[in-house]
Amino acid sequence: MSNIKISVAKGDGIGPEIMDAVLNIFNAAQVPLTYEFIDMGKSFYDKGFSTGMTPEAKESVETNGILFKGPMETPKGKGVKSINVTARKTWSTFANRRHFRSLNGVETVFSKAGIPIDITIVRENIEGTYGGIEHMLTQDVALCRRFITRPGSEEVHRFAFEMARKEGFTQVTCAHKANIMKITDGLFLEVFYEIAKEYPEIEANDIIVDDLAMKLVAKPQNFQVVVLTNLQGDIMSDLCAGLVGGLGFAPSANIGENISIFEAVHGTAPDITGKNIANPTALLLSGLMMLRYLGLMEHAVKIENALLYTLENGVHTGDFGDKNTKNYNTTEFANAIIENLGNEPSNNKARIGKATGNFTLPSKPLTQKVMVTPRQAGMVEQVVGVDLFVESQETADKIAPIFQKHLKPGLKLVMISNRGTQVWPTGSVFTECVDHYRVRIEAEADYKTSQAEMLELSSRIAQDIYITSTEMLRKYGDKIGYSLAQGQ
Amino acid sequence: MSNIKISVAKGDGIGPEIMDAVLNIFNAAQVPLTYEFIDMGKSFYDKGFSTGMTPEAKESVETNGILFKGPMETPKGKGVKSINVTARKTWSTFANRRHFRSLNGVETVFSKAGIPIDITIVRENIEGTYGGIEHMLTQDVALCRRFITRPGSEEVHRFAFEMARKEGFTQVTCAHKANIMKITDGLFLEVFYEIAKEYPEIEANDIIVDDLAMKLVAKPQNFQVVVLTNLQGDIMSDLCAGLVGGLGFAPSANIGENISIFEAVHGTAPDITGKNIANPTALLLSGLMMLRYLGLMEHAVKIENALLYTLENGVHTGDFGDKNTKNYNTTEFANAIIENLGNEPSNNKARIGKATGNFTLPSKPLTQKVMVTPRQAGMVEQVVGVDLFVESQETADKIAPIFQKHLKPGLKLVMISNRGTQVWPTGSVFTECVDHYRVRIEAEADYKTSQAEMLELSSRIAQDIYITSTEMLRKYGDKIGYSLAQGQ
Repeated sequence: MSNIKISVAKGDGIGPEIMDAVLNIFNAAQVPLTYEFIDMGKSFYDKGFSTGMTPEAKESVETNGILFKGPMETPKGKGVKSINVTARKTWSTFANRRHFRSLNGVETVFSKAGIPIDITIVRENIEGTYGGIEHMLTQDVALCRRFITRPGSEEVHRFAFEMARKEGFTQVTCAHKANIMKITDGLFLEVFYEIAKEYPEIEANDIIVDDLAMKLVAKPQNFQVVVLTNLQGDIMSDLCAGLVGGLGFAPSANIGENISIFEAVHGTAPDITGKNIANPTALLLSGLMMLRYLGLMEHAVKIENALLYTLENGVHTGDFGDKNTKNYNTTEFANAIIENLGNEPSNNKARIGKATGNFTLPSKPLTQKVMVTPRQAGMVEQVVGVDLFVESQETADKIAPIFQKHLKPGLKLVMISNRGTQVWPTGSVFTECVDHYRVRIEAEADYKTSQAEMLELSSRIAQDIYITSTEMLRKYGDKIGYSLAQGQ
Repeated sequence: MSNIKISVAKGDGIGPEIMDAVLNIFNAAQVPLTYEFIDMGKSFYDKGFSTGMTPEAKESVETNGILFKGPMETPKGKGVKSINVTARKTWSTFANRRHFRSLNGVETVFSKAGIPIDITIVRENIEGTYGGIEHMLTQDVALCRRFITRPGSEEVHRFAFEMARKEGFTQVTCAHKANIMKITDGLFLEVFYEIAKEYPEIEANDIIVDDLAMKLVAKPQNFQVVVLTNLQGDIMSDLCAGLVGGLGFAPSANIGENISIFEAVHGTAPDITGKNIANPTALLLSGLMMLRYLGLMEHAVKIENALLYTLENGVHTGDFGDKNTKNYNTTEFANAIIENLGNEPSNNKARIGKATGNFTLPSKPLTQKVMVTPRQAGMVEQVVGVDLFVESQETADKIAPIFQKHLKPGLKLVMISNRGTQVWPTGSVFTECVDHYRVRIEAEADYKTSQAEMLELSSRIAQDIYITSTEMLRKYGDKIGYSLAQGQ
């Protein structure tokens, strides 16, 4: 096999030290990769690159299709977005895959209790609250939008099932909060079971995310692959990292259609930077996920077995292992693994398996892809009203008439809620309100309205009250496209 | 002390069995309470009460101020909201307090590893995505609004610090995701440190919620009190329940200014309903939180010690404990505790402490309270533009001119994003889009606009493109009240 060229960003803090250690191991194992080192990270923000990378770095990644990166720091300050998140989103790496497996030599609560861990988390990597779309609506009220889309859900669920099929998992679990977020997480869950039908040999089930958190700390052995939305997946991933000893042992892959990113997700550890004592294991494991993705199975298995053998023999950096034995520094730890190339651990050997990806060089699209799912023929979309969000320090009974006086026959004020709880026309005097209400206006059944009419109405009402936001109420065929208020 | 009258709802499924067991224990311990049994739960939805409770039940709770409830089921079906959530929100029980403590006799991964658990979670109980404000914006795109407010954050943080002060905790930790949700969780965190200043004797610190998940499964002993937003608190609560043996051992209190609810949060267990084998421990522990809240410390301590003694002696229902010893049924388990009233466990005795609440009968407000924080004198609020959310299957370069042609001098199209990632004027061709864009229009520095103008502009643009939502862009003094797009 001829060499594959990949882009490598060493990262900030301990990044360069651990990346050098990993690449030394790769070289010793004669991994057929060529490295193109690129400029990304904190210092490139400081040099004026607002996304934390040079145009050459971006071009390199978009040409090679693979980015192997160390930890990076995002400068603190308002308006600066995380470089890690920007990279994942800009390049549409829609699935974050993390694999958590007990390692002999890494002691945890669960290893002490004799419970082996072997869980793969697949996290949707683009949507949810990670859109970062936030507004201060009043001086007291902040809003973050949480988006879940059908195409985005399809991509991540299909990835999870494809991975399960390719790698021999027999069960995929969807975790969600669809009992509360009935429309957004309801959509995520609905798409999960639609995609599951294409994989009849794999058991598909689902679980409420809080129940998952409880079961992961009580019976982690019940789960093989768990697929989740973005933030829930983030939290559950780190929970699982805790089960196997922390972020120092938790690799991460961000998989996209054209570009994939393999990275250690731990921090840059400025306190130990330059001391050559950092633990390179998470970055090495991430690199092994990359080799498997690229189909370099033989090299991945050989290196992984050497790592497992090394750990099993009590070799450790200062952050883990037996306090009574020598702490290896980064270079010594990497050299121990290099010396052990060819050795195998006594149990829990590296899985051999098949390539986990279908790597081809990116074909640069001419334009952005707009993913649209097939529309049901003949389904009528219809605007049936509007939710107006307004700032007011008055109670709901004072607010209602302001709206009613603008409504012509056929339109009616249906309800007013505060923090999601109905306060008008009925409610409880015990409901504590803030200075931001949602006011729902609906058309009578025989009255046809439109979004233009609703916005025009809003602009008239806006003469009398401050409208922070408007949201159309729509029906899709017979299906109502909005939720009721609590208590409505 | 004369008797306090409380409202009791036995609940669905195993609810009546475990409630009877708990009240039998209370009676045996001569707890000075009078019970008013009320009608709430699944069967009252079926009888046509849309909130799952009768008007008499509501009146009882609002008069007595205390609701002690068993588990309840919400009927499945669109539009029906959870009775538990409705109760919490309608009566503004803003703080959910849960206490997780290792129990001798309840074996867990952590007890096997010799790690004792003693953590209190305080969860904001009204806001976040629990507002349940959701819309389908297009056939492909669902939105859930996540609200965080300053008054709501103040209430829950003050509760956490007051509790810490009253009960002798020395540390309160705020968990959040302010690195991603900089405005919403940023507000929650900012208010935390503002309130912390009033409690200088208590150590206040904060942690990213995914890091918390990792640390809770690795070093739970590092935490005393953790305060979180609603869904994050929900997930972390159940994680902690897992640490101590599951929901069967995890009590819950919902504390409000006028009304407080004490409940078991486990399910109604229809599979074992009527068999008299359910475990009443979680409901009993919730009842003990209620006694402590009401200042009935002596009774609480006596019953808790009897429970701990009973568990320590290996008495257990069928869901836990030594499989080789007898399973006690619900009645036998309760009777064992009754017989042990007066006994104390060999270690981890019940804490004595002071009343955790300041109970007084609710004073029914004449009208809903609108909580508004003091405004900074002279701060100018100013509309500086609008975010328009639109449905389109075109790429951003096709969409931009539709907006530009409606803009008069002084207003400019600043950027277009898709799923939060900027795609116009610059972006990456690798960014995968869905059929829903955000289009940001801003006023030039020297142009004064207003929300009425922005809405009027929206209604004109709506002739050419479907606008699903509008969101004002506002400045508060010098502070910009909205986030940038990823890559902007």
